[in-house]
Amino acid sequence: MSDTPSHATKLMNRRALLGASAAAGTAVLAAPALAQEMVTVEWKMVTSWPKNLPGPGVTAQRIVDRVGEMSGGRLRIRLYAAGELVPALGVFEAVAAGTAQMAHTASFFWQGKIPASVYFTAIPFGLLPHEHIAWIEQGGGQALWDELYAPFGLKPVMAGNTGVQMGGWYKREINSLADLKGLKIRMPGLGGEVMRRLGATPVSLPPGELFQALQTGVLDATEFLGPWSDRAMGFHKAAKSYYTPGFHEPNGTGEAIFNQVALDGLPGELRAIVLEACRAENGRALAESDWQNAGSLQLLQEEDGVTVRPYPEDVLTALRETSAVVLAEFAEKDPLSSRIQESYTAALVRLAPWSDVAMRRFMAARDG
Amino acid sequence: MSDTPSHATKLMNRRALLGASAAAGTAVLAAPALAQEMVTVEWKMVTSWPKNLPGPGVTAQRIVDRVGEMSGGRLRIRLYAAGELVPALGVFEAVAAGTAQMAHTASFFWQGKIPASVYFTAIPFGLLPHEHIAWIEQGGGQALWDELYAPFGLKPVMAGNTGVQMGGWYKREINSLADLKGLKIRMPGLGGEVMRRLGATPVSLPPGELFQALQTGVLDATEFLGPWSDRAMGFHKAAKSYYTPGFHEPNGTGEAIFNQVALDGLPGELRAIVLEACRAENGRALAESDWQNAGSLQLLQEEDGVTVRPYPEDVLTALRETSAVVLAEFAEKDPLSSRIQESYTAALVRLAPWSDVAMRRFMAARDG
Repeated sequence: MSDTPSHATKLMNRRALLGASAAAGTAVLAAPALAQEMVTVEWKMVTSWPKNLPGPGVTAQRIVDRVGEMSGGRLRIRLYAAGELVPALGVFEAVAAGTAQMAHTASFFWQGKIPASVYFTAIPFGLLPHEHIAWIEQGGGQALWDELYAPFGLKPVMAGNTGVQMGGWYKREINSLADLKGLKIRMPGLGGEVMRRLGATPVSLPPGELFQALQTGVLDATEFLGPWSDRAMGFHKAAKSYYTPGFHEPNGTGEAIFNQVALDGLPGELRAIVLEACRAENGRALAESDWQNAGSLQLLQEEDGVTVRPYPEDVLTALRETSAVVLAEFAEKDPLSSRIQESYTAALVRLAPWSDVAMRRFMAARDG
Repeated sequence: MSDTPSHATKLMNRRALLGASAAAGTAVLAAPALAQEMVTVEWKMVTSWPKNLPGPGVTAQRIVDRVGEMSGGRLRIRLYAAGELVPALGVFEAVAAGTAQMAHTASFFWQGKIPASVYFTAIPFGLLPHEHIAWIEQGGGQALWDELYAPFGLKPVMAGNTGVQMGGWYKREINSLADLKGLKIRMPGLGGEVMRRLGATPVSLPPGELFQALQTGVLDATEFLGPWSDRAMGFHKAAKSYYTPGFHEPNGTGEAIFNQVALDGLPGELRAIVLEACRAENGRALAESDWQNAGSLQLLQEEDGVTVRPYPEDVLTALRETSAVVLAEFAEKDPLSSRIQESYTAALVRLAPWSDVAMRRFMAARDG
């Protein structure tokens, strides 16, 4: 965990030192201050992102920087971009094996080995960002997430948020459910499965190939993230209809994963610092995503000739009903998945009416 | 600022100590670690809340606790509830005078002496919590807030959020604009001024007197906060119509105020810790408020016989138009107020369409 001598060794040295030095005026130092000065820790953070990728890459770097500042340089985290130490999707195993002490990534990458991990990023027609944070912080979500990762010796926490997604880029308009038949669309995860059951053909392609695939007709449609990232990807040059809502991913929680032994081995104040840095990043990253998404949405509409279109009502109804079926099947996978589904649904049933009364009605009144 | 010897004195003592002790194995300690171990600081935080008041009082205590944990006890903040050291609304002057190093409060309390301070809590038909945070963090809001408080030697930051408010408790239904005439309502600030111009009679009463005033008919209506606090106040026992939206206060940012000299005098890592603790509290407090408001809203409707009613369309239109007039007059007070109004409005024009496309349409689709 550290390139420096062990905590215990240094603490012993320090005690000897202080015993000999009371005359030097150090009696004002309280015991906790003594313990913490002893340790300088160097950690590795592996990430699933290119260095400083707008959104999650910037978030990962900010967490490293804030931990450095708050610890006065005592907890130094070296950030590795995707591929520098391990591949983008190798970070889970790397932290479990102790190759790195922590990772910055997203939980839905692990749904191949841990199906229920997807609940900790986003669920079709599920929780919005502020609701998701309420579920994790207040509604029992964190305890279930901990339980889900405990068999791997890992501790997950929220660390940033890219916000609500858009529904995606379409080369032709969707005017009814029939228009989904045979539609070649890139939409990973549960949203893609919902689309498949409605007659579309989900196509799996890495991000770097999406623009060309859309331009050449390999794809009829693709989702990616929100206006900020999507405009940078150039999708508006290949498709002009930008659909809303992003029914499949209403939230974008970033995930920090810690090796539990490494986290437990930190002095208490450094553990508190790294966890609070992740928590502070939730609001800061969401603010950045909202600000940038809002500005990019303006540019797409005013300068790039893009039209924002709502999915038709019959399509939304079918998407919602099919999502419920997919999720019900999903919960039957194992008892823990079922408990997570129950907790998530209870949070949704509790929080959605409040969001409707407080926010949706306010937005309607504000817009006139 | 501190009951302990000065930073410089202790640093010198420490250097002497370390010079004599290299043989004891302390060479692994890097210079920054040396500096930070020297200082233990004791601060006072005065607040505008009763101790552990649900929402802001709990937030103030959590900030103190997290700072204690992250600093390993090196920055010890003693929290004073309203009235313990200075009155609830005396905290601004107390921090300016250095009686305390920081306060936890809300900016709109200062509108008597700093009219534009109200922009940093909430504005009628203004920014929602996630939008407000985006304005402060990304849209230039923090710099204007700093400029507004600089003449008092104070530095403000966001520190918690109680979320979107409800529109208030009414003993009789509001079916048209005419029903506002002569309505005796408690609604402080700009919202009350809007109500006054539409024929209502704003009544100023402290929170502790509101329930009885509503019950006895001194008030026909009162707003307070959201379902969590409102249910604890018992308003549902005196009025059964709970109106939405809370057009007058769509956001509830808590304010931490620092004495600038005290903040600048902290070692860098302690300054970073106290500022990041405030930032982390934005998301954590909002999660708590949303969770509790959602649960209390259910209880009010299912157990307490309360009906949630939307303001009629003609009332909302009049409230919105009158709010615009009040805000335009407000901006003419002085050049800085005008610049704050411009920045706030620009943020609203940018962010509201994104909230509409991403969140409002999603909520509509989710609800079916």
